[in-house]
Amino acid sequence: MEFRMADTAFVGATLIDGTGAPPVPDAAVVVRDGLIAWVGPARALDPEREVRRIDVAGKYVIPGLMDANVHLVLHSDPEILLRYEPGCYDDLVVEAAQVALRAGVTTVFDTWGPLEALRRVRDRIDAGEVVGSRIFFAGNIIGNDGPWSDDFSPGGYRGAFNPAVVDAINRHWEQGVGGDLAWMSADDVRHAVCDYIASRGIDFVKYASSAHSGFKFIVFSPDAQRAIVEEAHAVGLTAQACTLTPEALKIAMQAGVDLLQHGDSTGRHPMPKQTLELIVERQLPCVAFLKTERHVAALDANTEMPEHWRAAWVVKDRNGRELIKAGARLLLAADAGIFGPTVETSPRLGALFRDLPDVPLHLGAAHLLWLQAAIERELAPMDALLAATRNIAEAYGKADDLGTVEPGKRADLLVLNDDPLVDVQNYAHIVHVVKDGAVVDRSRLPERPILTSDR
Amino acid sequence: MEFRMADTAFVGATLIDGTGAPPVPDAAVVVRDGLIAWVGPARALDPEREVRRIDVAGKYVIPGLMDANVHLVLHSDPEILLRYEPGCYDDLVVEAAQVALRAGVTTVFDTWGPLEALRRVRDRIDAGEVVGSRIFFAGNIIGNDGPWSDDFSPGGYRGAFNPAVVDAINRHWEQGVGGDLAWMSADDVRHAVCDYIASRGIDFVKYASSAHSGFKFIVFSPDAQRAIVEEAHAVGLTAQACTLTPEALKIAMQAGVDLLQHGDSTGRHPMPKQTLELIVERQLPCVAFLKTERHVAALDANTEMPEHWRAAWVVKDRNGRELIKAGARLLLAADAGIFGPTVETSPRLGALFRDLPDVPLHLGAAHLLWLQAAIERELAPMDALLAATRNIAEAYGKADDLGTVEPGKRADLLVLNDDPLVDVQNYAHIVHVVKDGAVVDRSRLPERPILTSDR
Amino acid sequence: MEFRMADTAFVGATLIDGTGAPPVPDAAVVVRDGLIAWVGPARALDPEREVRRIDVAGKYVIPGLMDANVHLVLHSDPEILLRYEPGCYDDLVVEAAQVALRAGVTTVFDTWGPLEALRRVRDRIDAGEVVGSRIFFAGNIIGNDGPWSDDFSPGGYRGAFNPAVVDAINRHWEQGVGGDLAWMSADDVRHAVCDYIASRGIDFVKYASSAHSGFKFIVFSPDAQRAIVEEAHAVGLTAQACTLTPEALKIAMQAGVDLLQHGDSTGRHPMPKQTLELIVERQLPCVAFLKTERHVAALDANTEMPEHWRAAWVVKDRNGRELIKAGARLLLAADAGIFGPTVETSPRLGALFRDLPDVPLHLGAAHLLWLQAAIERELAPMDALLAATRNIAEAYGKADDLGTVEPGKRADLLVLNDDPLVDVQNYAHIVHVVKDGAVVDRSRLPERPILTSDR
Amino acid sequence: MEFRMADTAFVGATLIDGTGAPPVPDAAVVVRDGLIAWVGPARALDPEREVRRIDVAGKYVIPGLMDANVHLVLHSDPEILLRYEPGCYDDLVVEAAQVALRAGVTTVFDTWGPLEALRRVRDRIDAGEVVGSRIFFAGNIIGNDGPWSDDFSPGGYRGAFNPAVVDAINRHWEQGVGGDLAWMSADDVRHAVCDYIASRGIDFVKYASSAHSGFKFIVFSPDAQRAIVEEAHAVGLTAQACTLTPEALKIAMQAGVDLLQHGDSTGRHPMPKQTLELIVERQLPCVAFLKTERHVAALDANTEMPEHWRAAWVVKDRNGRELIKAGARLLLAADAGIFGPTVETSPRLGALFRDLPDVPLHLGAAHLLWLQAAIERELAPMDALLAATRNIAEAYGKADDLGTVEPGKRADLLVLNDDPLVDVQNYAHIVHVVKDGAVVDRSRLPERPILTSDR
Repeated sequence: MEFRMADTAFVGATLIDGTGAPPVPDAAVVVRDGLIAWVGPARALDPEREVRRIDVAGKYVIPGLMDANVHLVLHSDPEILLRYEPGCYDDLVVEAAQVALRAGVTTVFDTWGPLEALRRVRDRIDAGEVVGSRIFFAGNIIGNDGPWSDDFSPGGYRGAFNPAVVDAINRHWEQGVGGDLAWMSADDVRHAVCDYIASRGIDFVKYASSAHSGFKFIVFSPDAQRAIVEEAHAVGLTAQACTLTPEALKIAMQAGVDLLQHGDSTGRHPMPKQTLELIVERQLPCVAFLKTERHVAALDANTEMPEHWRAAWVVKDRNGRELIKAGARLLLAADAGIFGPTVETSPRLGALFRDLPDVPLHLGAAHLLWLQAAIERELAPMDALLAATRNIAEAYGKADDLGTVEPGKRADLLVLNDDPLVDVQNYAHIVHVVKDGAVVDRSRLPERPILTSDR
Repeated sequence: MEFRMADTAFVGATLIDGTGAPPVPDAAVVVRDGLIAWVGPARALDPEREVRRIDVAGKYVIPGLMDANVHLVLHSDPEILLRYEPGCYDDLVVEAAQVALRAGVTTVFDTWGPLEALRRVRDRIDAGEVVGSRIFFAGNIIGNDGPWSDDFSPGGYRGAFNPAVVDAINRHWEQGVGGDLAWMSADDVRHAVCDYIASRGIDFVKYASSAHSGFKFIVFSPDAQRAIVEEAHAVGLTAQACTLTPEALKIAMQAGVDLLQHGDSTGRHPMPKQTLELIVERQLPCVAFLKTERHVAALDANTEMPEHWRAAWVVKDRNGRELIKAGARLLLAADAGIFGPTVETSPRLGALFRDLPDVPLHLGAAHLLWLQAAIERELAPMDALLAATRNIAEAYGKADDLGTVEPGKRADLLVLNDDPLVDVQNYAHIVHVVKDGAVVDRSRLPERPILTSDR
Repeated sequence: MEFRMADTAFVGATLIDGTGAPPVPDAAVVVRDGLIAWVGPARALDPEREVRRIDVAGKYVIPGLMDANVHLVLHSDPEILLRYEPGCYDDLVVEAAQVALRAGVTTVFDTWGPLEALRRVRDRIDAGEVVGSRIFFAGNIIGNDGPWSDDFSPGGYRGAFNPAVVDAINRHWEQGVGGDLAWMSADDVRHAVCDYIASRGIDFVKYASSAHSGFKFIVFSPDAQRAIVEEAHAVGLTAQACTLTPEALKIAMQAGVDLLQHGDSTGRHPMPKQTLELIVERQLPCVAFLKTERHVAALDANTEMPEHWRAAWVVKDRNGRELIKAGARLLLAADAGIFGPTVETSPRLGALFRDLPDVPLHLGAAHLLWLQAAIERELAPMDALLAATRNIAEAYGKADDLGTVEPGKRADLLVLNDDPLVDVQNYAHIVHVVKDGAVVDRSRLPERPILTSDR
Repeated sequence: MEFRMADTAFVGATLIDGTGAPPVPDAAVVVRDGLIAWVGPARALDPEREVRRIDVAGKYVIPGLMDANVHLVLHSDPEILLRYEPGCYDDLVVEAAQVALRAGVTTVFDTWGPLEALRRVRDRIDAGEVVGSRIFFAGNIIGNDGPWSDDFSPGGYRGAFNPAVVDAINRHWEQGVGGDLAWMSADDVRHAVCDYIASRGIDFVKYASSAHSGFKFIVFSPDAQRAIVEEAHAVGLTAQACTLTPEALKIAMQAGVDLLQHGDSTGRHPMPKQTLELIVERQLPCVAFLKTERHVAALDANTEMPEHWRAAWVVKDRNGRELIKAGARLLLAADAGIFGPTVETSPRLGALFRDLPDVPLHLGAAHLLWLQAAIERELAPMDALLAATRNIAEAYGKADDLGTVEPGKRADLLVLNDDPLVDVQNYAHIVHVVKDGAVVDRSRLPERPILTSDR
């Protein structure tokens, strides 16, 4: 190939390219205009050419990591949602995207959040105006009401808050496809979803097969679920469902979803064998919220936790192990976000953070805990890496651009000091985070710490 | 025919036999051993025979009335459920059955209540040990938790009550087929329902297609709903579903239910045209909770009522009118029960009773308001009578024994002073209530007034 | 003296007569007509006389024990107050009085309860129609609302219960001298209290100097407190105040109360030195809720307990020690009552029972724990005995009849197997409980166990 | 006198100087260096002198109005306290002070608010850096906890909010003299109050004689109240108490308070005759929250209002009339503040605003409603004016500087177009507001509308 001045070559590392191919020692990756221009043996690079060389000899190059389910605005306690509402949460989204990027997560899929802020920040990052993880977002989980509705804050703010203020907050999330859709016929659901997809600039569709208030209930009939998936597919978007019970999961699969969002969550009863087999057989991409052994043990011992939460986690843990054993196509995700120092005393969230080790909800750390948990459950190291890269790109229909280190794709790379296939902790030994071909100045991120500030 | 000493003949009234046939003046109905032995012109009776004659010349004889949806124990406030729990509510059930009988409602279908009390009282009435309306009961609405769960008392008793006490109360209703079933796979639901039907002595099956907490949600998947209906049919029981949204209604119909329980309730949005047409075309028996014009107008003006309740009632009212206009096969029912004088100040129930005329929840009066509402909505007087008699018997599979005045059926009759087809108020002008061939001493009912006492 | 046939003599025991005098070995106590007729050396009894002799050689005779602050109906959870309201709680009062008597507590002072039930049962016990501890009662704590008001169930039943039902329950306690008095001028308080004393048949007056909702507040001004005490004294009743803060205690003392009810409770801050000295100097009878070391240590370690409760208990414990050290005139009491097996799961009461050793709230056991705690805090054994007998009788103005084993007093005796001055556990080694001269058949008590049944 | 260039003369108006003297037509008021330099007949001004003349012929000059009880930050709903907490509420205080000034209220006494913001804004206004009403403030009501404690938001935020956040908000108000003082001995209260007064820069002392949670209770014993008043007087500050019952009022008077804060509020029972007579006899300055007849009538008819609120208002209205009739020394005040448009839907505050005419809580309008109500209750027009000027200045010990138009005082004037003694509505016909000798540019106020913006 013809190298040019603007080219940068990462030279000398062992390349684990995310295709599942064995690692290639002493490789070179040339990037140009944000894309991967060439991949090959380092010795094939012509040292005379005026390519900018970055020496990574002895290091390891892998694709930039991805997270299949984050919430860039997840901390929805009043001191956050009220304080940052005038600025529409853009600052929080930026902060979170930068925290993720600093940790090597170059692409995140936000599956529930304040739509307008997410869209604005996504576009500013894509335009190079702001540095941060690449964002794809769903906006609302179709069929759920906002963060201060019964769906997410059961009873908590009724009576305490001005309903006019609560409504204003909720509208940032609901965007016309909230809980009212559950009252509708399948036809009416179809029309509402069609409008939503057409007008809001979302990247993929997520809907509630399971209810968020009353987890055990089903939100949409099979007809309505099919209508939603069809509307997404009609405009080339992938569709996914939030499912929490065996039957909600089954209905979603029958509706044709492209990705099972936390398919490992089946409530109080383990996933039926038949369902498990189907997931494996179809190699349906399946997010699993794997937790470390240490975390699971602590949950088990934690008496502060409501019993039904613990019951659900026991089942989820078992399902996760079964999915791995059976060879399901897993995706890394953890529902992670960013949180301030007061979260431990939050009435709603505190119990998830207090007195538990390896809390898997912190963006920037959650993916490492997931990878560790996967290895603990005997997922092969290469499969763990694929779950954090290629599998996610493919599941979201982004494999042409993302997920592997191959020519023509976005040049999102992670340069590690040590071999991540040997020890999963090595994913944290970051030498460089490269996004769109540029080395990120991680020391400056996040540029304006708000929640993650300790002040 | 050969008349015998034990025979009793009701002689001289106009007979409206509940088959839909035109009224027959100067008729005679002979009863023997609790059954209708003979029906014909009064003149065909041989006056010499030693039959006991009851002269009802100038009166009107109709079948005993039926109510397709009552709750003999409906007032579930603590001062009732705690006080009467040691006696397991039997006394309340008896009182309610006697209040109904006194008003001419000779058969009631209890669609949700404390199973053991209902079974005991049903059996005692059937055995002639206690006088009261004939009871058929469903026990629990499969998939719902008990009266002090979130399903029926949202949040109300959490924190206030000893959970051990709350659980004990709820178990009277739940009977092993409560809300936990919503977490299960369709197969597991089938097994739980099979056990329930086999062991509890119920008369018919009712299940939750719609959730009771979070009305808009679906409790059981189509597969699970089919399993429930199949289990009922397998042992010869009818099955019905509680539905509150268009999609929950549709799924229940597809599952093969025999009767639509309050099919007129479709939440915030009117019943889709297609669904309405299907109900009419199949002549699927459909309970509608018709309210009088006066009641509807007052609801509309009542600002104390939560807005979403009112919205649902506006839709329900509209659906009811459309069902009548289209010729659906309606059944009389009103969710009626008995209540004490303090119900108006009940935090949970008060708003349903205060400041509203024609409250349709009082057993003994509710059916009269339903009939009036039906006439106001231009249901033909004869069709209104069928909705309160034959239609119900047929829908519940009891037409061999009940619902019309025909030989071979139970001799449940209502003798009215004035023609109910001319003025619907005449249903209240009772001369005799006859059950199983015997004239009821209405002046003694209820024998032990508890809730209906004014003391 | 002249002995008679009806006389009974307890012969041969060591007598600890409750006057503070040293134990007298080989004594005899002769009772007649329910009174103590004669006390003297056993040898002085004429063995020829036809007195009925009960041989208690080697045993110990002490006065029947007293408790200065019990609540015969204390468990005010709905499953109790609603269930037993139709019977007005008489059965519960009887059960509690029998539980106390069985344990050797022959006299109890009920300082808050359902007045009419207490009066009826007191009178039936006094008339010999029912066996049980001798009851003296205050009825309401003047200035407090009933058990289901904010004063005793903060917020708990608001919204959950029918206000008409709540009011009916509360009236059993309030009796016209509830919280409304706090709104009144001192003159109006005086009139209300005067009416109450005159019409309800109470034995002594208790009023709220400290509020029960908002413990730190003062209910009655000094003028109003003086008025209440004066009204009590005017008809020969003693008066006591519920105090929980240093200032409320001081005002009550200035108002002239005869007895400090839990004078050891001063909230978050220890009792001021000056106040302590005054109590000692005046030898003002002072109830202290002493807890065992084991209980105090467990409280300290219990994280389930709200912090402010623990803070108050630490202070109370310190005050108790200081009062003992300084030589205050203590009275035994523990706020004891009876409770069913579900109390541990009670949302309101559970935390007081769960996971704590030596819970001092169970009538029949609480006084033993008090005595143990007193000894642990180095109260002299004889002073501990006086705190449970003579001191209480004197504080309540009953010393002419009760509190010591002296001729002319009621023959309330406790015959112990072992010396209670040597080991405080010996108070539990009961041989006989004698009340009004009769040996109680303890094996039959309580005659109708309700709460204390394990069924 | 010697006039100087910098002097300004308001010439030609009728002067009602606030001393109670009859109006003087055609007067002149000369101001210099922010003070009133000279007052006399307009004709006595030498027209040759180079004084700046402002022609107010035909107008009416009165002292700048005062309000004896405002809360510059009163709207304490979360959308306000959380949003503006980062700026410590200074902007809200400024806005409120400007709203008041625009309406001619040149001095306000803030009796409860966020201390640091009040101090900063007071000082900036005094320094001429910001325009606004002259502020004197008390900071906390000693003995009360903050706005989100049970004292002001009963139960409302418990469970809903992060306690760390709630505590941070409350500390802005509590300042070390919150509810914990109620647990203390009088001596300890004295020390805490002494520290508070010495360190916070407050202008006067206000304490809770009545509790704010549980209005009927007394917070501080007479000894503690005396200690608080003595500490205030020791450093030359006035002291006032919040009282809501007859006895709390009496104790405060006995403690020597300088001013009765809403002395017309005595809860459910009218003020005892003796207390009323004492207030009049001593001419103790007494704030009364007078409401217009129209408002009182609407309150009476408002069924949304809790019954006990209405009861208290009926009593308050009666007390107000009695105080006027008896000749008490009244002060104008209304607990006024500023509120945004959503206040009507506030769960806590809405009922005070919705569906009621003449809501007396809006700063800038409340004083006009008070004056109208006073006239309706037959307070003499001149006495009404004194209640809004001189009486307040004297009660707060500011009579040397404020309250009348007399030489040597601050030149705070209100120039009205029409005679306020003829028609009370004329207080709203403002020509000029003069503060510290300068004519205020009212059209610019408030400079940065936040709550009072309609956006």
